[in-house]
Amino acid sequence: MRILVTNDDGIDSPGIYALVHSLRKIGDVVVVAPDRQQSAVGHSLTVSSPLRASPFHRDGAMFGYAIDGTPTDCIKMAISTLLPEKPDIIVSGINHGANTSVNVLYSGTVSAATEGMMMGIRSMAVSLTSFDHSADMSVAADYACAIAKQLPTLLLPEDTILNVNIPAIAHNEIKGIKITRQSKSMWNDHYERRIDPMGHDYFWIKGEYITLESPDDADDIVLKDGYISITPINYDLTNRSVMKQITSLEKIKI
Amino acid sequence: MRILVTNDDGIDSPGIYALVHSLRKIGDVVVVAPDRQQSAVGHSLTVSSPLRASPFHRDGAMFGYAIDGTPTDCIKMAISTLLPEKPDIIVSGINHGANTSVNVLYSGTVSAATEGMMMGIRSMAVSLTSFDHSADMSVAADYACAIAKQLPTLLLPEDTILNVNIPAIAHNEIKGIKITRQSKSMWNDHYERRIDPMGHDYFWIKGEYITLESPDDADDIVLKDGYISITPINYDLTNRSVMKQITSLEKIKI
Repeated sequence: MRILVTNDDGIDSPGIYALVHSLRKIGDVVVVAPDRQQSAVGHSLTVSSPLRASPFHRDGAMFGYAIDGTPTDCIKMAISTLLPEKPDIIVSGINHGANTSVNVLYSGTVSAATEGMMMGIRSMAVSLTSFDHSADMSVAADYACAIAKQLPTLLLPEDTILNVNIPAIAHNEIKGIKITRQSKSMWNDHYERRIDPMGHDYFWIKGEYITLESPDDADDIVLKDGYISITPINYDLTNRSVMKQITSLEKIKI
Repeated sequence: MRILVTNDDGIDSPGIYALVHSLRKIGDVVVVAPDRQQSAVGHSLTVSSPLRASPFHRDGAMFGYAIDGTPTDCIKMAISTLLPEKPDIIVSGINHGANTSVNVLYSGTVSAATEGMMMGIRSMAVSLTSFDHSADMSVAADYACAIAKQLPTLLLPEDTILNVNIPAIAHNEIKGIKITRQSKSMWNDHYERRIDPMGHDYFWIKGEYITLESPDDADDIVLKDGYISITPINYDLTNRSVMKQITSLEKIKI
């Protein structure tokens, strides 16, 4: 199995290292990842400037290509240009911090997997609920590997990826895996107004994450309960049930 | 009606100017938009660096605030920090170039409207099928205005925005408005390999847009036929129909 790996924390992050280490047991792994931290870039794509692809070494061996762009750029460039053959699957991660609920929209990790699926490759994103850079990634990596192994034969439509979130707890504390839906949570953000040394205003975002519900099939909730969450995510955003409700708009004339 | 306007082409673009001009007929308009072109940034959010908000003047009068960030940043900062009161609606655009099919995922224009809806404000995105900077925006602006007028009373769920795309044709050639779904199209991209003056490789994306289907309720198709397309877009990306098909994953153990 040919496996393409990317992430949004950068090619030198602990998460991608642990993931690659684990995936090498089940296939040939190629890494094409951003050359630096690219969190919260969403599905951002570089169109107005050129990109570089630099070989990146780790432990004295070639680890992969570092791209000075976004996770989406990495997937597009890898599949269309850098790789001699299309990969069988794409695994994006392991992200530091959960990508659940509305965070799916901001996430470069999830967007890379979505881009892969848009290019016809079965894809999954993996995130760990810890921002601690020394967090143990090995359990998450082994779960990612076990799920990745099933990805090629899973009954999945062409527009759907797996969004995997793993609680940062000990192996024996993980209660199991649950198939979930994106929960209804939100960020209650505000911007701190500060003054620079020249006396001018600048603003820095500061947010509080609020979970708005507690049904047991929501991604945020099962994670808190000690389960791994797997959400099937698709990129057809049409709200079909609304289409018939808004046909009055078709009568507008100017 | 208090209307917040943003875009992704930048606060000095012709599209936002035409839109604001038209919307002033139906409400109090506030503009908070990126200080430069931000196309294809998707739902990118600035978290690792601070932001500035600078008053921007046009025709000798205050036009709005220019932010050195993404369209999503603009919406978050406007609603949480800059505006004394929440707006009643948000209109994002008018974008140069259609935002249909998979382009919805890359679009900063659509993402700004989605962010607005995530913050509880009824929102719509407006795009014109022309990249020509001298394209006439007035017809599109008047349609956007007529649709925006109905936005507060429309039967729309809390997670859904309107994605409006307008063909760049004369007023009398527009055949009407159709409620559509996101079509199945794709970009067939590759990266041109070039050599810089130092003799090093660099890559530049070059894409071809391919429409994969032709049913009459798809956004791309109705636009080609001379209709305005309105697609209800939601940000719960869960593919619910798949949830039951992949429960075998719940049995994975490591």
